[in-house]
Amino acid sequence: MRSHYCGQLNESLVEQHVTLCGWVHRRRDHGGVIFLDLRDRDGIAQIVVDPDTPEAFASADRARSEYVLKIVGRVRLRPEGTQNADMPTGMIEVLASRVELLNSAQTPPFQLDEHGKVGEEVRLKYRYVDLRRPEMVERLRLRSRITHSVRAYLEEHGFLDIETPILTRATPEGARDYLVPSRTHPGHFFALPQSPQLFKQLLMVAGLDRYYQIAKCFRDEDLRADRQPEFTQIDIEASFVEENDIMSITEAMVRGLFRDVLEVELPEFPRMPYSEAMHRFGSDKPDLRIPLELVDVSDLMADVDFKVFSAPANAADGRVAALKVEGGAALSRKQIDDYTRFVGVYGAKGLAWIKVNERAKGLEGLQSPIVKFMENVIEELLDRVGAKDGDVVFFGADKTRIVNDAIGALRVKLGEDLNLYTRRWAPLWVVDFPMFEVDDAGRLSACHHPFTAPSCSPEALKADPASALSRAYDMVLNGTELGGGSIRIHDQQMQKAVFEVLGIAEQEASEKFGFLLDALQFGAPPHGGLAFGLDRLVMLMVGARTIRDVIAFPKTQSAACLLTEAPGEVSAQQLKELNLRLRQKNGE
Amino acid sequence: MRSHYCGQLNESLVEQHVTLCGWVHRRRDHGGVIFLDLRDRDGIAQIVVDPDTPEAFASADRARSEYVLKIVGRVRLRPEGTQNADMPTGMIEVLASRVELLNSAQTPPFQLDEHGKVGEEVRLKYRYVDLRRPEMVERLRLRSRITHSVRAYLEEHGFLDIETPILTRATPEGARDYLVPSRTHPGHFFALPQSPQLFKQLLMVAGLDRYYQIAKCFRDEDLRADRQPEFTQIDIEASFVEENDIMSITEAMVRGLFRDVLEVELPEFPRMPYSEAMHRFGSDKPDLRIPLELVDVSDLMADVDFKVFSAPANAADGRVAALKVEGGAALSRKQIDDYTRFVGVYGAKGLAWIKVNERAKGLEGLQSPIVKFMENVIEELLDRVGAKDGDVVFFGADKTRIVNDAIGALRVKLGEDLNLYTRRWAPLWVVDFPMFEVDDAGRLSACHHPFTAPSCSPEALKADPASALSRAYDMVLNGTELGGGSIRIHDQQMQKAVFEVLGIAEQEASEKFGFLLDALQFGAPPHGGLAFGLDRLVMLMVGARTIRDVIAFPKTQSAACLLTEAPGEVSAQQLKELNLRLRQKNGE
Repeated sequence: MRSHYCGQLNESLVEQHVTLCGWVHRRRDHGGVIFLDLRDRDGIAQIVVDPDTPEAFASADRARSEYVLKIVGRVRLRPEGTQNADMPTGMIEVLASRVELLNSAQTPPFQLDEHGKVGEEVRLKYRYVDLRRPEMVERLRLRSRITHSVRAYLEEHGFLDIETPILTRATPEGARDYLVPSRTHPGHFFALPQSPQLFKQLLMVAGLDRYYQIAKCFRDEDLRADRQPEFTQIDIEASFVEENDIMSITEAMVRGLFRDVLEVELPEFPRMPYSEAMHRFGSDKPDLRIPLELVDVSDLMADVDFKVFSAPANAADGRVAALKVEGGAALSRKQIDDYTRFVGVYGAKGLAWIKVNERAKGLEGLQSPIVKFMENVIEELLDRVGAKDGDVVFFGADKTRIVNDAIGALRVKLGEDLNLYTRRWAPLWVVDFPMFEVDDAGRLSACHHPFTAPSCSPEALKADPASALSRAYDMVLNGTELGGGSIRIHDQQMQKAVFEVLGIAEQEASEKFGFLLDALQFGAPPHGGLAFGLDRLVMLMVGARTIRDVIAFPKTQSAACLLTEAPGEVSAQQLKELNLRLRQKNGE
Repeated sequence: MRSHYCGQLNESLVEQHVTLCGWVHRRRDHGGVIFLDLRDRDGIAQIVVDPDTPEAFASADRARSEYVLKIVGRVRLRPEGTQNADMPTGMIEVLASRVELLNSAQTPPFQLDEHGKVGEEVRLKYRYVDLRRPEMVERLRLRSRITHSVRAYLEEHGFLDIETPILTRATPEGARDYLVPSRTHPGHFFALPQSPQLFKQLLMVAGLDRYYQIAKCFRDEDLRADRQPEFTQIDIEASFVEENDIMSITEAMVRGLFRDVLEVELPEFPRMPYSEAMHRFGSDKPDLRIPLELVDVSDLMADVDFKVFSAPANAADGRVAALKVEGGAALSRKQIDDYTRFVGVYGAKGLAWIKVNERAKGLEGLQSPIVKFMENVIEELLDRVGAKDGDVVFFGADKTRIVNDAIGALRVKLGEDLNLYTRRWAPLWVVDFPMFEVDDAGRLSACHHPFTAPSCSPEALKADPASALSRAYDMVLNGTELGGGSIRIHDQQMQKAVFEVLGIAEQEASEKFGFLLDALQFGAPPHGGLAFGLDRLVMLMVGARTIRDVIAFPKTQSAACLLTEAPGEVSAQQLKELNLRLRQKNGE
């Protein structure tokens, strides 16, 4: 129906006749002439309708906000002085010869350029109106370009796009599954996959060699932290590979993606062991844009007369760490109180600090509630963190985990608040993860999943599991985990050793993953892979603030769709067919 | 790890050192030398291991069927007389200098080249073994290439790849939904989508203009007719379009696909009205490879003294049709009896026939149980169907629907049995579908779905709904519906008229599709689209006999996965979290 998208019009088309289709973005009447801003997914063009064309004028006169129009007209330069350099089509306008009303529209629930005035609930309920905003269109368009670029790269490198089932069995990720009752097998349920993990490993056993999929995954979790019950994963697996193969192929993919879509040339990704990341940044996904680092001062605090510091300094599972912020002495008391509350969320019992007003004056030049306890070590401390006049030094002293969580988060918060970023993009690989996490009671659990290969022998693993490292790797960008993966176990003896260490009995393993364990016996190649969170990647690349802004039809934090009002009620007949009853209020 | 895939080796690599990784396809010991056929996803290469390299020889000696090996060796020409022209790598072999056992394998549940000897159940249970068969690898590889080609075409034509939800509300297709209980909204359920129909229409209302998705869809149906509970759809929608736009863009897509993937140049797709397709072929998806046609003979049979023919010939909803088969007089009595049983499945009460032995002899030259009833019209009848000596003419006489179903199916069956195909590929468009189906009780239902636009005005639709045609179109290939679509209703008045004719009350419409009806009020553009069944398309293109052969992990006819044993049982705790109980045996 159209000859051009609105956004495609420019001076090269002057004097040409064009046909446009779109929505009335704005209407103004000025000097007896009607000006319509016509919007389509590519942009906005100004349409002029003159009373000289009475039919067109009469139609234009009926047009209101969000009416759907077809316009035939001639492109011309805007008169001197009415040009708009801020608008891609701002040098030209279209003098309409025909205006056709394709559809009318009720007054929209909110004006597109006033979407900020309504709550997100309204935007989600009228998602089809919200998606008309040029910003939202652009995000979905970029998302489409991102998946295109990823697919092109992977297919060029011999990866086959293979679909794995959505109606399947519980997968080993350990979050809560969404279940689907089976009608043909009463009392039995499918699970929606938390990832295609087991299937992609089976594809490797099948010899498909290089697999990828842009796969829907599902987790029935409480949706804190900007998550969605269904999310999308770029899922990759290859055979006859080692860590380096997967890391270099996926790093090149992401660098190509940034080049294609954002015209950004990312630096080579540094590789950092997990232990170093925790030590320097208190996080296994450090935001390297922020030039702050945790500095260990446990040794200095071992003998101070201040239990809050000396106790963790002397404990095997304790840590005292300092974080120096240049120019931070200017922080107000209220700001420091706010940061104290902030670290409290991560379990820190307080936030000690020293403001360095004038180092030359010794203790006199320092302002701090705690400095009196550490006179003997203060100079060495300030030297170690490189504190200069005008700086502040914060301290975390607690169990190592709490110090890392709290001061690591404070580091990111300060970077954000004080805009300390040194660059726009800071990617890295985190490697050499521990194989197992040890909880306070000494119980082991798999850091990734129980199919991750350790980097030691089965014997060494059993001898000292807590020290074992895994062949896992995470890709981190700007403090966000973009993706994670590992070399998998392809050897039955190793798999048995891991289950043994985890205390998973043969019976249980066989019930849960029997088909994968079986498959490992029939000629499994060495293999490994990686999965990227697509939503999160798109969110970072387009600069959206929530994951909901890069998903066409997202759900709320309570896992509901305000647009379709899903989930909904179902009939008694449907439940009966599924062999189910709702429980009564009394829990019956 | 490898330098080449096995299938890539050829004479140009002679004297080069290569590294291969793969599975032992076959092992032979001959003259003190071990011959291994090493297989990977690209092909098979012959490896020669000589006792001169004792370490390699010892490893090769341990290798059994399906062991995983890494081989380093030198490519050389096979000795004169041992070359194998049937094998792509049959001119060369690799003399191994190193053989590394990467993994061992138990004796596989079946030999790959003997898969026909085991039931499909065994193949599905050990899918990772079955997928190793070169034929299966090739099917999945072609499937990946097909989606690649489709995506490339659509993206080049400005279609954005946009994901729609899997956890959603019931969609309007009318089959049984798979349900997903919500934990956060007790007693409420998501439905898995039968298609993204409503969402893609909402994307058009949102102005996204051109959308596509390769989308997972779900139907909880009884799985006769080679269907799967989850299947994949190439889903397309565009705004500001008419039938021709969608048909030409998707026809060009399919023709490009056949060119890219199969190197086949399809002819232009003829367009055939629904009424013509039913009349000539008894089917709305005629297989035009078969040169047989139904010929209407109702007028001739109106006065014959044979109720079986004269009654339907005189009934408004009856039909008498003839199907002439050249050379069919050679069919045996048993074959004709078989065809009689065959049409019985479609509701036909019998199958009348006339064998034309020698037309010149008049009635004498005909062999038939019914010809005595129609002496007066026999010459005209034989002329009309163009019967010559050696032909057979079959007849269907019943309600039109039964005649079309039965004789339409017989036509296809005869085409298959007698191999009457005139060409390999016969695509066409079927257009001008009726808007509504009328059942025996005179009730109307939507032929497609209730959002399909009629090709008449709302007033004409209400005045004579049974005659109204829709703006729907089906793409048919070789008697299979590849895809179907329509121009949708974008006008509220029209939508109301359709609901009125269907007897859907405003309340019911609003409960089921309220959000779409709402959206139509806020500036819906004219739009339409199409959805292709990807599995079926791939099946046709790769020449597989069942849809299960083009899906990596398919389910059985009872909607179970034999590999993972899904669906499975779940814990009482999980059910409790979902506010559900299983019904007891007594239906409680």
